[in-house]
Amino acid sequence: MSVVQEAIETKKLGGELSASTIEAVVLGYTRGEIPDYQMAALLMAIRLVGMSYDETLALTSVMANSGPRYSFPDCVDKHSTGGVGDKVTLTALPLVAACGAPVAKLSGRGLGITGGTIDKLESIPGWTADLSEERFRAQVERIGLVVGGAGELAPADKVIYALRDTTGTVDSLALIGSSIVSKKAATGSGHLLYDVKAGSGAFMKTPAAARELAELLVRLSASLGIKASALVTDMDAALGSAIGNALEVRESVAFLRGEPVPADLAEVATDVAVRLLELHGVSDPAGSVRRALDSGAGYEKFAEFVAAQGGDVDALVDLPVSSSVRVVSAPAGGFVGAFDALGVAQGALELGAGRQTKEDTLDLGAGVELLVRVGDEVSAGDPVARLYGTRSVDRATALVLGALTIGPDPVTPTPHVLDRL
Amino acid sequence: MSVVQEAIETKKLGGELSASTIEAVVLGYTRGEIPDYQMAALLMAIRLVGMSYDETLALTSVMANSGPRYSFPDCVDKHSTGGVGDKVTLTALPLVAACGAPVAKLSGRGLGITGGTIDKLESIPGWTADLSEERFRAQVERIGLVVGGAGELAPADKVIYALRDTTGTVDSLALIGSSIVSKKAATGSGHLLYDVKAGSGAFMKTPAAARELAELLVRLSASLGIKASALVTDMDAALGSAIGNALEVRESVAFLRGEPVPADLAEVATDVAVRLLELHGVSDPAGSVRRALDSGAGYEKFAEFVAAQGGDVDALVDLPVSSSVRVVSAPAGGFVGAFDALGVAQGALELGAGRQTKEDTLDLGAGVELLVRVGDEVSAGDPVARLYGTRSVDRATALVLGALTIGPDPVTPTPHVLDRL
Repeated sequence: MSVVQEAIETKKLGGELSASTIEAVVLGYTRGEIPDYQMAALLMAIRLVGMSYDETLALTSVMANSGPRYSFPDCVDKHSTGGVGDKVTLTALPLVAACGAPVAKLSGRGLGITGGTIDKLESIPGWTADLSEERFRAQVERIGLVVGGAGELAPADKVIYALRDTTGTVDSLALIGSSIVSKKAATGSGHLLYDVKAGSGAFMKTPAAARELAELLVRLSASLGIKASALVTDMDAALGSAIGNALEVRESVAFLRGEPVPADLAEVATDVAVRLLELHGVSDPAGSVRRALDSGAGYEKFAEFVAAQGGDVDALVDLPVSSSVRVVSAPAGGFVGAFDALGVAQGALELGAGRQTKEDTLDLGAGVELLVRVGDEVSAGDPVARLYGTRSVDRATALVLGALTIGPDPVTPTPHVLDRL
Repeated sequence: MSVVQEAIETKKLGGELSASTIEAVVLGYTRGEIPDYQMAALLMAIRLVGMSYDETLALTSVMANSGPRYSFPDCVDKHSTGGVGDKVTLTALPLVAACGAPVAKLSGRGLGITGGTIDKLESIPGWTADLSEERFRAQVERIGLVVGGAGELAPADKVIYALRDTTGTVDSLALIGSSIVSKKAATGSGHLLYDVKAGSGAFMKTPAAARELAELLVRLSASLGIKASALVTDMDAALGSAIGNALEVRESVAFLRGEPVPADLAEVATDVAVRLLELHGVSDPAGSVRRALDSGAGYEKFAEFVAAQGGDVDALVDLPVSSSVRVVSAPAGGFVGAFDALGVAQGALELGAGRQTKEDTLDLGAGVELLVRVGDEVSAGDPVARLYGTRSVDRATALVLGALTIGPDPVTPTPHVLDRL
């Protein structure tokens, strides 16, 4: 019986896999020596039987070590589990860099309803994530803020994730946690803040499930020598008002320049920045973040970072978005009870803000801008959203309107940060 | 989401698959349209979550219909779940054919420790299972006893079984039951007796597990219009004293000719024959079987069948076996407490009586003859087994001796038929 067959038998019967078995299976699969169908059977057994903490840690470790590993022990990084209109990287990281905590971030492109940070930044003319390792390191030293492409980080995670995606084995806490932390460990930042989203627009639908994942992420990180903490934040509604690549950069720039943005975005971005400075050991983190905002130092750091990666800084203040705009109006009067993140994201996807398959090309200027928020009072005919872009506008309109709930009774908005650990 | 992905989601979350979903997945997989890795994930979910009776019946039905189907509503057939020295087909079926219940049997070759009926019969010089459908049908009409090769029966079961074999998904009651009954339903006999083995030499290790499978086999058969019943028989020890192809035919011929054979073989063979005649509606089944034995009619039917398929009838009475014989002696005196079927079978396998891989060639004259049975009193040095054949004789000796337990206290043998339904 081969090592993977033994692993299947063990896990199927509720047993625990040794670290050496996990290593042999993961590396064997990554090298193409173990066939997809045996790995798929093992992943389903793991999905249904679960893995102990020790097994999960062993899996995380072997995936982190399956490709190149970087080391930036002084740097901070954040990871979001993916949400709608999630612009925390674009807002919080320039603030922490301006406060003296360097950021070396490797990021990816988006698939499905959650956009990728690199896609968003590519809406800035000239900006590129295609940096040599030498240039990447030099930019950390010089500016303290860099975002590069994740490339061949943790290749074992990459091939296993692709298999999970087609075999119904994505929704396993142990597999989700090890996948996230393996990439972060390979990136090598010494301090990590996990922003775990909970709600309709997130993978974790409830705050309790999100907290469970957050605990696992922090524990795995600590076991691998990373100082980590986590927030659980709301994703029943999109974060801020902009959903779409250039639209989100524009809203982030507005926040960094001290212009008014929705309270949830300001709260989460500030909270993440403060927590990262705490992890890094900066004194008076809250005061530092406030001063970086008030002085414009956060925006200056962002502009410096954009310029260093080839971006047109002059374009930042009025970043071009699609000139084709449709205003969607409230079908009735009353109080906004929900503006469901998932429905809004599907509308933005139809407009071209996201990819349904890897081959799709984005319309970087497309997306949705929300004009009302949960708790607002509206009259019939009031504008509730602007749709940018030319693709499937009717379908997008229906999806955005379908996401909007208006009722007769006043609504109290829920908090944006749901839990902290 | 494709139909197999939807099926995986449903089953993973504990739901029930519709008959149309099962059909689409099974036929899609058989046609090569669904990849192995998705089918493997679904099979593992089925292994761990289980299937309802309705799902199991739908799976059985679609696999039975996945290739050619025959119809022999007047015929009887038996199916054994596989045991060591299992010669019930060779003994019970000639008896029932002699009593007027026709037998149209499609059989296979053996893999692993359990030999195939066709391998055994091929030890008769000239005998062949390679019959045209026309010749097969004509022999049913003329002689009332035929054994042909299973060929392309239930091809869906064939490809799914091959995948189960390498993905740890063999040991699922629903998958085992549907696999067995799908082939029997495609064969088309109207009356079926299942001989479910329990013990060390069988797939089901306990009588309770064997009874559970027996109940499923009978229920599935009834749902598909087959009159069926089942016996649970002991497989802690081999059936009879011969293990090996020519050796087993020789012992079967001895039984049919009224020569002395071990009581367990006589009991199970007679019991199966009686149950089959009951299913077929023959009056006085027990008396009929006794008369067929006493008169030699059972042996005559067997000889007629062998001749019809090209076999040398003159060779039957003293069928050639390997001339290379080693006698194994008792290492101590006392009472035989066990002569473990699995160990004895592994010994026979080493000698060349079975295949470890599909490519292995058999030594049809090789095998083991047991000279003592559970409960016998032996003295040190008494012969306990004869090993026939020239391959790996030392390893076979060690395995056979390892299977033998001799103790100081008298032992009462357990019954051979453990349960009836």
